[in-house]
Amino acid sequence: MIKRKQLHIGLFGFGCVGKGLYDVLNLSKHPCAEIVKICVKDKTKDRGVAKDLITFDKHEILNDDSVNLVVELIDDSEEAFDIVKKALLAGKSVVTANKKMIAEHFDDLLSLQASTGQALLYEAAACASIPIIRNLEEYYDTDILNRIEGIINGSTNYILTRSLNEGLSYKEALQIAQQLGYAESNPGLDVEGHDAANKLSILSAHAFGRFILPEDLPRTGIQNITSAELKFARQNNWKIKLLAKAYKTSEGLTAFVMPSYVDDDSALYKVDDVFNGVQTETVFADKQFFSGRGAGAFPTASAVLSDISALSYDYRYEYKKLNQGKDIPLIDDVIPVYLRSEDVDESVLSDSFEHIFEVFKSGNRLHICGQIKLKTIFTWLKTHPNMAVLHLPETYVEINSKGLPILELENLSEL
Amino acid sequence: MIKRKQLHIGLFGFGCVGKGLYDVLNLSKHPCAEIVKICVKDKTKDRGVAKDLITFDKHEILNDDSVNLVVELIDDSEEAFDIVKKALLAGKSVVTANKKMIAEHFDDLLSLQASTGQALLYEAAACASIPIIRNLEEYYDTDILNRIEGIINGSTNYILTRSLNEGLSYKEALQIAQQLGYAESNPGLDVEGHDAANKLSILSAHAFGRFILPEDLPRTGIQNITSAELKFARQNNWKIKLLAKAYKTSEGLTAFVMPSYVDDDSALYKVDDVFNGVQTETVFADKQFFSGRGAGAFPTASAVLSDISALSYDYRYEYKKLNQGKDIPLIDDVIPVYLRSEDVDESVLSDSFEHIFEVFKSGNRLHICGQIKLKTIFTWLKTHPNMAVLHLPETYVEINSKGLPILELENLSEL
Repeated sequence: MIKRKQLHIGLFGFGCVGKGLYDVLNLSKHPCAEIVKICVKDKTKDRGVAKDLITFDKHEILNDDSVNLVVELIDDSEEAFDIVKKALLAGKSVVTANKKMIAEHFDDLLSLQASTGQALLYEAAACASIPIIRNLEEYYDTDILNRIEGIINGSTNYILTRSLNEGLSYKEALQIAQQLGYAESNPGLDVEGHDAANKLSILSAHAFGRFILPEDLPRTGIQNITSAELKFARQNNWKIKLLAKAYKTSEGLTAFVMPSYVDDDSALYKVDDVFNGVQTETVFADKQFFSGRGAGAFPTASAVLSDISALSYDYRYEYKKLNQGKDIPLIDDVIPVYLRSEDVDESVLSDSFEHIFEVFKSGNRLHICGQIKLKTIFTWLKTHPNMAVLHLPETYVEINSKGLPILELENLSEL
Repeated sequence: MIKRKQLHIGLFGFGCVGKGLYDVLNLSKHPCAEIVKICVKDKTKDRGVAKDLITFDKHEILNDDSVNLVVELIDDSEEAFDIVKKALLAGKSVVTANKKMIAEHFDDLLSLQASTGQALLYEAAACASIPIIRNLEEYYDTDILNRIEGIINGSTNYILTRSLNEGLSYKEALQIAQQLGYAESNPGLDVEGHDAANKLSILSAHAFGRFILPEDLPRTGIQNITSAELKFARQNNWKIKLLAKAYKTSEGLTAFVMPSYVDDDSALYKVDDVFNGVQTETVFADKQFFSGRGAGAFPTASAVLSDISALSYDYRYEYKKLNQGKDIPLIDDVIPVYLRSEDVDESVLSDSFEHIFEVFKSGNRLHICGQIKLKTIFTWLKTHPNMAVLHLPETYVEINSKGLPILELENLSEL
């Protein structure tokens, strides 16, 4: 049987997750992992741990040769990258949950792992407690992945669930999410979909071997969702979820982050509150679905701990797919969406659609459901940032594709 | 980066899954795995593969030193064990999908792995395409698992789904399942819950470190479910699923296989047809849910292939929990069930219950919903093998526990 390595952990950050890890490590009495130093910023806070564990100087950990594992759990992604880089170069392996840092420095982190021979693990960076990265790396190693989509941001899912179920305003729901420690310190990261985009760019690298910079991912968040969209959802017995999607076609890869109407047919329909859910579609295994808590101190800490444990067995990501996938072109697919605007004429807006299912007008409010190019959506959003755009369910498309008047007109005009 | 081992595979069995693996290996162009020999029993069948690949003599594979991996996919569990044992002793690693063989010879297989230093992997033996064993071994290594329950037999789930949705008779649904290759060659293995029990004993070993011999697992299948149970399910908007459950209390471990009424609150409610679903509950990560295809050539083959791929990286199960868990006592818990009988008096049967929620009589048919000891149920089933016993949902218990007449009477009698 493999011998386990003793891990002496230097921990950066003692917020919600850092404290969670400290507690979880104590509760689980892990045989080969021990926190020897904790580096924090704020000198005034009482951390409720032995004083000699705390330091305010990162070098006290980075220069300590007895520390062979750095666990990085701070907010600031640039400072985080500096710490991770220095740790790897100092011959320490690293566990981090900082998706922003990983997504922004993915290539650097790859070469740092290669050049130093040290391992960097970050299961907690995507879907907290769900072991999705490990499964993409190991289990889907051999199968051919065609699609991955999911609810990968806990706080927006919590906000959307509360809003839909209890008619809470966006602000009220967000406040509760923050009080519960589900929301990032900067809520914009969550609600505008930045956090989901960061995670999707990481997932895409492990799923398809195609890393996509977050800024290259078409992305719109939940900030423009109003009672109009909630009402439309209730009318159709749908829910609203912020989805991250990436799927392969013969032409290439389409990936984006967008709020979506989800119907009862989808496994994601029942993924509520702070839970995350990820659906994969592969050639051989077909559809698989994973769900679990996507935020919170202990669920996130448990993912961090399982990385720590894997390191005690010298586990590391092999990034097996990067060579096959890195050149897959990104495709501007045509997708079915609901688009709502207050300040664009119907004629102008409808010209942007490849195909229209339905048009609804009330006062100056206009919403169109139809097929539209991804690029077109995001061109509109640049000039009209308050537009609400939501992906529509497949079932809706199937039903509405069957002979609407507008279809007949198109057919006639072709004669 | 780790160097991968080249695997020369001797394959035993070329049925549904064996052929599936052959196709999947060809389709996925695996870089380091190749089938060099296939051993089959029936000399008359045309296998549609190169003649020189086929042999009818197992020793041609077992004595071939160029074969470093044996993949065992035959039906006969005793013959399978003989092959696996000889393969390990011959210094070959082994991948198998034979849950019956593993469950019946678990301890032997452990010592064989230890003494030979060879690895034995069997992800496909539980829930086909769902990577549940790998996750229990690796990912839940550090977390504390309290409960695992799920739909772990594809063909019974297919039968129950078709019966409930289309009012098909049990026989009709079973025939279709067999035609589709979802059912074991011996349907009794599926419908009487033997297959689920075999899987549960394997899962329990990897989840809690407590291996339970299949014959020690309380088990009842779906063979006694009639239109009466289907009607009761429809009345309550429930579905019927054959569930395997294992959960820890302070006293010990309770584990059993039993058809269960499942309500919309459960993640398992939407797991239909041949899909399997497994729900875990841990101290830190809380509830997690996995679902995927639980039967079928390609899904099963894809799990086998992912084991093959893991072996090329020298992966092996560490059975980390066996030392902590092996002495956990098995507990005879009190559980809420629906029990239907035609030939027992109400007074006699109701005496067996710790607490009764409702009693229904129609002609000579009697069903009682209440709390009853596991042991009592299975004592009844020994003498009345045609009784239908179904586990009841938590929500039902919560609702009915709130002040029924019978409760008041009990309270009065205590005065």
